[in-house]
Amino acid sequence: MATTLITGGTVVTSTGRADADVLVDGERIVAVLQRGSVLLGTDLTAGVDNVIDATGKYVIPGGIDAHTHMSLPFGGTAASDNFETGTRAAAWGGTTTIIDFAVQSHGQKVQDGLATWHGMAAGQCAIDYAFHQIIGDVNPDSLAALRGLPDEGISSYKMFMAYPGVFYSDDAQILRAMQVAADTGMMTMMHAENGPAIDVLVEQLLAQGKSDPYYHGVARAWQMEEEATHRAIMLANLTGAPLYVVHVSAKQAVEQLAAARDNGQNVFGETCPQYLYLSLEDNLGASSEEWGSFEGAKWVCSTPLRSKEEGHQHHMWQSLRTNDIQMVSTDHCPFCMKGQKDLGLGNFSKIPNGIGSVEHRMDLLYQGVVDGQISLERWVEITSTTPARMFGIYGKKGVIQPGADADIVVYDPNGHTSIGYPVDKDGNPTGRSHHMNMDHSAWEGYEIDGHVDTVLSRGKVVVTDRQYVGAKGDGQFVRRGLSQYLI
Amino acid sequence: MATTLITGGTVVTSTGRADADVLVDGERIVAVLQRGSVLLGTDLTAGVDNVIDATGKYVIPGGIDAHTHMSLPFGGTAASDNFETGTRAAAWGGTTTIIDFAVQSHGQKVQDGLATWHGMAAGQCAIDYAFHQIIGDVNPDSLAALRGLPDEGISSYKMFMAYPGVFYSDDAQILRAMQVAADTGMMTMMHAENGPAIDVLVEQLLAQGKSDPYYHGVARAWQMEEEATHRAIMLANLTGAPLYVVHVSAKQAVEQLAAARDNGQNVFGETCPQYLYLSLEDNLGASSEEWGSFEGAKWVCSTPLRSKEEGHQHHMWQSLRTNDIQMVSTDHCPFCMKGQKDLGLGNFSKIPNGIGSVEHRMDLLYQGVVDGQISLERWVEITSTTPARMFGIYGKKGVIQPGADADIVVYDPNGHTSIGYPVDKDGNPTGRSHHMNMDHSAWEGYEIDGHVDTVLSRGKVVVTDRQYVGAKGDGQFVRRGLSQYLI
Amino acid sequence: MATTLITGGTVVTSTGRADADVLVDGERIVAVLQRGSVLLGTDLTAGVDNVIDATGKYVIPGGIDAHTHMSLPFGGTAASDNFETGTRAAAWGGTTTIIDFAVQSHGQKVQDGLATWHGMAAGQCAIDYAFHQIIGDVNPDSLAALRGLPDEGISSYKMFMAYPGVFYSDDAQILRAMQVAADTGMMTMMHAENGPAIDVLVEQLLAQGKSDPYYHGVARAWQMEEEATHRAIMLANLTGAPLYVVHVSAKQAVEQLAAARDNGQNVFGETCPQYLYLSLEDNLGASSEEWGSFEGAKWVCSTPLRSKEEGHQHHMWQSLRTNDIQMVSTDHCPFCMKGQKDLGLGNFSKIPNGIGSVEHRMDLLYQGVVDGQISLERWVEITSTTPARMFGIYGKKGVIQPGADADIVVYDPNGHTSIGYPVDKDGNPTGRSHHMNMDHSAWEGYEIDGHVDTVLSRGKVVVTDRQYVGAKGDGQFVRRGLSQYLI
Amino acid sequence: MATTLITGGTVVTSTGRADADVLVDGERIVAVLQRGSVLLGTDLTAGVDNVIDATGKYVIPGGIDAHTHMSLPFGGTAASDNFETGTRAAAWGGTTTIIDFAVQSHGQKVQDGLATWHGMAAGQCAIDYAFHQIIGDVNPDSLAALRGLPDEGISSYKMFMAYPGVFYSDDAQILRAMQVAADTGMMTMMHAENGPAIDVLVEQLLAQGKSDPYYHGVARAWQMEEEATHRAIMLANLTGAPLYVVHVSAKQAVEQLAAARDNGQNVFGETCPQYLYLSLEDNLGASSEEWGSFEGAKWVCSTPLRSKEEGHQHHMWQSLRTNDIQMVSTDHCPFCMKGQKDLGLGNFSKIPNGIGSVEHRMDLLYQGVVDGQISLERWVEITSTTPARMFGIYGKKGVIQPGADADIVVYDPNGHTSIGYPVDKDGNPTGRSHHMNMDHSAWEGYEIDGHVDTVLSRGKVVVTDRQYVGAKGDGQFVRRGLSQYLI
Ligand SMILES: [Zn+2]
Ligand SMILES: [Zn+2]
Ligand SMILES: [Zn+2]
Ligand SMILES: [Zn+2]
Ligand SMILES: [Zn+2]
Ligand SMILES: [Zn+2]
Ligand SMILES: [Zn+2]
Ligand SMILES: [Zn+2]
Repeated sequence: MATTLITGGTVVTSTGRADADVLVDGERIVAVLQRGSVLLGTDLTAGVDNVIDATGKYVIPGGIDAHTHMSLPFGGTAASDNFETGTRAAAWGGTTTIIDFAVQSHGQKVQDGLATWHGMAAGQCAIDYAFHQIIGDVNPDSLAALRGLPDEGISSYKMFMAYPGVFYSDDAQILRAMQVAADTGMMTMMHAENGPAIDVLVEQLLAQGKSDPYYHGVARAWQMEEEATHRAIMLANLTGAPLYVVHVSAKQAVEQLAAARDNGQNVFGETCPQYLYLSLEDNLGASSEEWGSFEGAKWVCSTPLRSKEEGHQHHMWQSLRTNDIQMVSTDHCPFCMKGQKDLGLGNFSKIPNGIGSVEHRMDLLYQGVVDGQISLERWVEITSTTPARMFGIYGKKGVIQPGADADIVVYDPNGHTSIGYPVDKDGNPTGRSHHMNMDHSAWEGYEIDGHVDTVLSRGKVVVTDRQYVGAKGDGQFVRRGLSQYLI
Repeated sequence: MATTLITGGTVVTSTGRADADVLVDGERIVAVLQRGSVLLGTDLTAGVDNVIDATGKYVIPGGIDAHTHMSLPFGGTAASDNFETGTRAAAWGGTTTIIDFAVQSHGQKVQDGLATWHGMAAGQCAIDYAFHQIIGDVNPDSLAALRGLPDEGISSYKMFMAYPGVFYSDDAQILRAMQVAADTGMMTMMHAENGPAIDVLVEQLLAQGKSDPYYHGVARAWQMEEEATHRAIMLANLTGAPLYVVHVSAKQAVEQLAAARDNGQNVFGETCPQYLYLSLEDNLGASSEEWGSFEGAKWVCSTPLRSKEEGHQHHMWQSLRTNDIQMVSTDHCPFCMKGQKDLGLGNFSKIPNGIGSVEHRMDLLYQGVVDGQISLERWVEITSTTPARMFGIYGKKGVIQPGADADIVVYDPNGHTSIGYPVDKDGNPTGRSHHMNMDHSAWEGYEIDGHVDTVLSRGKVVVTDRQYVGAKGDGQFVRRGLSQYLI
Repeated sequence: MATTLITGGTVVTSTGRADADVLVDGERIVAVLQRGSVLLGTDLTAGVDNVIDATGKYVIPGGIDAHTHMSLPFGGTAASDNFETGTRAAAWGGTTTIIDFAVQSHGQKVQDGLATWHGMAAGQCAIDYAFHQIIGDVNPDSLAALRGLPDEGISSYKMFMAYPGVFYSDDAQILRAMQVAADTGMMTMMHAENGPAIDVLVEQLLAQGKSDPYYHGVARAWQMEEEATHRAIMLANLTGAPLYVVHVSAKQAVEQLAAARDNGQNVFGETCPQYLYLSLEDNLGASSEEWGSFEGAKWVCSTPLRSKEEGHQHHMWQSLRTNDIQMVSTDHCPFCMKGQKDLGLGNFSKIPNGIGSVEHRMDLLYQGVVDGQISLERWVEITSTTPARMFGIYGKKGVIQPGADADIVVYDPNGHTSIGYPVDKDGNPTGRSHHMNMDHSAWEGYEIDGHVDTVLSRGKVVVTDRQYVGAKGDGQFVRRGLSQYLI
Repeated sequence: MATTLITGGTVVTSTGRADADVLVDGERIVAVLQRGSVLLGTDLTAGVDNVIDATGKYVIPGGIDAHTHMSLPFGGTAASDNFETGTRAAAWGGTTTIIDFAVQSHGQKVQDGLATWHGMAAGQCAIDYAFHQIIGDVNPDSLAALRGLPDEGISSYKMFMAYPGVFYSDDAQILRAMQVAADTGMMTMMHAENGPAIDVLVEQLLAQGKSDPYYHGVARAWQMEEEATHRAIMLANLTGAPLYVVHVSAKQAVEQLAAARDNGQNVFGETCPQYLYLSLEDNLGASSEEWGSFEGAKWVCSTPLRSKEEGHQHHMWQSLRTNDIQMVSTDHCPFCMKGQKDLGLGNFSKIPNGIGSVEHRMDLLYQGVVDGQISLERWVEITSTTPARMFGIYGKKGVIQPGADADIVVYDPNGHTSIGYPVDKDGNPTGRSHHMNMDHSAWEGYEIDGHVDTVLSRGKVVVTDRQYVGAKGDGQFVRRGLSQYLI
């Protein structure tokens, strides 16, 4: 295979920066070396197949999005990105690994669910991928299967305290699964919302004629996220299972996580770009000429966008700085407005839950660097290094060092990225500027003071010169080990 | 200068491990490269002057001890290690940088204090050194000087809420200094104990005839550390100054730090090996044939060793895991029992305060890895990487990457280190096993399941084959920038 | 009806003491007057029918036990005290009002459950009684009935987060009921334990052969009480319902209650004598000649007795001092060892849950005064005045003032009470010393430095000279208003 | 002496209400009796000298203002109310006892300070009075004197963490005094603000030309109140002294107090009407035609009025409901604008600190009842019963019961009180409506939906029919015992 030298850039790690070149041989990084790449008199530049000039740019480990849902069946439809379109969009945005969720549905065998997802992904992906396992039906059989998952390269599983009748597990089920996790070292991922209580509120709001997307945010009150977060923490405390709470959006939930960690528990939290930038008022409460007050459907996801009046967004950025929240994933789960989101016209509870962001995570978080919310190092940490450590792929992914997969992004701080559907001077759309399979953008109008310049996936350039040059099937399944954070 | 290749080892960073070789050219690291060191067909091993075989060993960035007091005048005597003996002992123990404290005494100019310390250190050191500045007399003059210190490569200063009449600053003085720190980005380091209140307790205990070393620990009650920590935090909150609390020993003080960080404040804490292993009961309360109940004088330091009954030590290890405490320094301040500590016979308040540990920090913390208290990565983080980031020398120090100083330790997990003064089978001392200028060891009898194998300081091997092969004056002054942790 | 003067005593209220006489006319108190009872020259002593000499004694409002379960069906048997025996025992112990729990079982109408309890109590009681309503089946019908209960003099209802399949309500049901409570001002009483999770632990312990009563305490871990307490608080926060958590035993649950109150929520907590004095180690873990390790069955109740090693009992007394716990009830639910508790021989989960204490609450708490745990005023507050205010009968009950029912206890601080089954000098039992319908005492051997001297129930002396002189049917149903604590 | 019957009213206590009459014989209450006052056939109404008809009104224990400063020397002037004018105004407002502060100045003997205050008050007062002792100079002599104060009927003393050079005590002094308090059971009252730090901010603001009253509030930042509160708590924790923090205004300080109480410490807090109603923005930041931006001087007091934007006032009402703040005093310390407050024209630090409210406390807090902030019972508790219990005069004061001083207020919930300087229809002042010796009112324009109808002081009617009918010298010195709250 080819050799590549990325030269002249600033290598950014989770702890600092180095003016250094990176030498790639085939799929792997073989050296990080002094800028100029002359070692003991040998000019390495001369011998390589390709040279990428990264002068004035950041060289970072490829993004790892640890929470995506390609093709996820939900509410009678399915997420609009499949593994092909979704991972290609990810590549466009500087993400070189996703960890998606295989689903065990009610009544199904865990192994069968996993096989289905392997089938959907194999040969389709633009970048490497791994799986968490959703356990949708805890029973002696599935608990036994759960115990075997680490041998399959699946070291984490997810449960839902929401969605009764669908993915929901009750506390008895959670307890049993967590006991397996404590034994095996698997990470328990939790969707922490009190679903049974929320469903009452949903029913009551609808009965009152409050059917707009805005009421999705009202029904899923922060109290029910805080509560479920605390409950998950105590079940983890009782069993000794490590716990990772997904898509944290309420500041009060963060306080629960922080208290548990200060108390010595192995508890972690993830947030998503939407909880940093978007809000109940501005987005769920939005209206447009096209959709009226149903415009907010674009941002219906769970946990919901929170009130900016209450200050959740501000607090969530702070939590990234203080490490009370450890990393940022997207919970990428896109649905088109036409034919999907519009299933919920007149009834917000029928709107498929999800936002598409897999392409924008690296950019949106980089904007946090520009805005002074986080440091450049913290950007790399929360988008790549910590996800790798958290989910057992560090060394292969999440770091630029010899032996690691050459998943590398050259990021241009002098570039610019406009997200959304630009219009020309007459107001006519010029064609969409993103690559996800959606008929709209949840991030319409966001301007980023930076740009994903070049993307390498296992040594192969897949994005360069604003072109996708990879191929379907480039991506491989990644077997994961246990989380590095376990003590 | 010579080239060196460290080959066959496992490079450990604060985030993970890599099987990789490290190439050194002169004083700097020039590459981290695949094990075997063949790049594009070129065998780098052939061309280097020296090869260090690190097979089966850890290759880590040299230790950074951010809190030492060589030759510090205290209580009518002075710390028994000077910059020569102290830095040589540090090198023996795998520490390749110290940050010592220059002192401005009452009535003195800051510049003069700093010049004195430069004078004491220059040409004496075995390893690189830097300075924090103690501000012992806040006045318009010293505040102006403080503002200029970053230009001198001094980006942090220390104040004392204890020791009235000596180093003590009152709250008005602390406020004024912190305002300068908030302006300049300097780190405020705080000795957080309520000195005026403690001195009342000291006087009362002595009046009651309670003069043994044990009462040093009684007088310096945890409430007075917790209180001062909180006070420092609030003064920092008011001024916006970043705060770093030194030698944290009380679990309640940790809780104050954790709460402030969760609240978004730039607040950090350091602990020391003595607060992880030693206790009021076992050490301050010790007695021996030689010294009777004055034996405890060996462990008189401030903040004091805390009660193990109250669980501080256990909590302090936990704080290292949860990052509520960010790093470990020694507060190395050695005094001999004869002629120094014994000044306090019959009056614990006359015992010079300090313990000598500069040589043992890397080993003692590695034992925490063996004991399952912290991970291998966390060991590197709290002993080297975080100190470098915290005090503005990261990139040059604290990391193994191209461009960094070649301060490298090869650590042998299969080696063993016995600390203290071993005796032969007849009970006769066989000569001391440490290299600090002390007539005893505070760590007598500690056994470490690991060993400092080889130490490079800026590319030069200074410790190898259990021999010190460096020279006085090898170490240079390191100018420091601002802390990397400031947002 | 007759007039009575209680003269020479010290009237103790929840805020202080007065040397005063109390004049009773028929069923009511008509005056509290200066000791000696001469008003404007009129000697009232002369004109009364009875004079009770309270010299050297405390005159207090009769005890109110807000948590009893006479004849409660549980686990295939029923509480061994019925309304006759239980209220008579209460009277013996200085309690003049109980609030018992009417039960709506699954599938039953609330009104029918209430009618059943009215039927069981009417004409049987020695003292006045009121009812809380247990809602065991939340549905549209029972919610409507709940809304009407205040008109029946029932201003509080209880739900269970434990006992799935019996009394258990899920979070959706709790939410709906709390909404009614928020509308009506009714108090929500909560049995706060995570039943579904606990039942898993029970099953697993039994499967491991751990069938002794001790494991009842192990299975019902404090984490599951803390968790449920927090969950109830958040559901109350969301709905605006006032919340009263019954039988709090874990110190961590108290912390949750305290935090909620400091945060401004209408949240209250009750503890019971068993959580102040008894423990997992000493009682659930007890063994005897007669019963072996099944001896612990005497103290099987839920929430369970907690570990004294963990310090819950100490913390619970403290909570009474700081008002983080507002009052003390008994959760009186007695079962005999023979024929009832012994249903659980070989399987702790079959042991009927409950302890009999209704007779001893006033004495056991008075001992807290003697031991310096609480003040004399606090004793009156937590046993009578606060229960009356909390549950809407203050003015009629819980206070000595004109217009109040003459429910009065003369308590002798120089008396003594030995609880349990005394033996004569040959070790032969001399007959039981308590009056509850139990074949043992949970308080065997407790010695109290005080004695219930005289008890008046609505003006009638029912206990005097160590004799019960009242009659079945003396007690009447008390209609209750809303809690006085609602703002 | 005369006998009086107060008939037809509702007696309100800290725990509830009773429709009852109150019989007074001479200076004392001799009975609380059924409304109608017929006992055993004797109509008491017939025999009394005076009958007060309280029909439709509340009969409450006279107000106790535990924090006043009559004639206090401050900043080169003295509080404008002396004991004659101040206590008369108190009587007008339904307050029948004040606890003022005797002052030991620097260099003075405690006994001499106390004697001076006895001299100023004796024969001057309209109502009863007691003293706390300010200790302005801790030394062996004053500590010995402190120990003797309980024998003088002085069971509490106050220290200042603010006002360096005037009343300030350093932490060593506070520790020594608290040790005496722990021994004797005396209550330590603390002015909790970090004076040395605040004085730096004052100096800096003035140097920047920020001299308006508004900057008084800026300089005395909440951080410095929170900090000092925590420090006082920890010194109390160390010594075991009970602690009462005066004039709490910052919500963060309340959190410190609440945490300490939940932790079992004997810690209490008082707030004042100004911290419930007034704010930095509206009052310190006020301007007027007459005074321009110096208008704010009317509300210069310490601790200062807090920002309503930050929500302190809202939180302070909540704290009264949750009992995190136990009582309300005025800190009455009036100064006229002309000749006193105007000393600080051009320099806010020269404005005498203080607000006059002694006349309005009962009304202003009653308005909290009308507004739904607190219950009627809580009103009586925080204005009379708790002050009496807290400061050792309960039984004699603070309660309506036989043996108590007949300090009684008949309060009319249908009356109305307009505070301030009303103007006629032409805008001309019609004469002031208050009776304090001030040339303005800090409460101008406040309208109260209630009215102090009749006031009895030790059995003598002193206010009736909107007239003061008492006399100078009616009031006597009250010797106080220890706080009832000590366990
Ligand atoms: Zn989810
Ligand atoms: Zn998801
Ligand atoms: Zn220090
Ligand atoms: Zn030091
Ligand atoms: Zn229960
Ligand atoms: Zn019960
Ligand atoms: Zn004050
Ligand atoms: Zn004052």
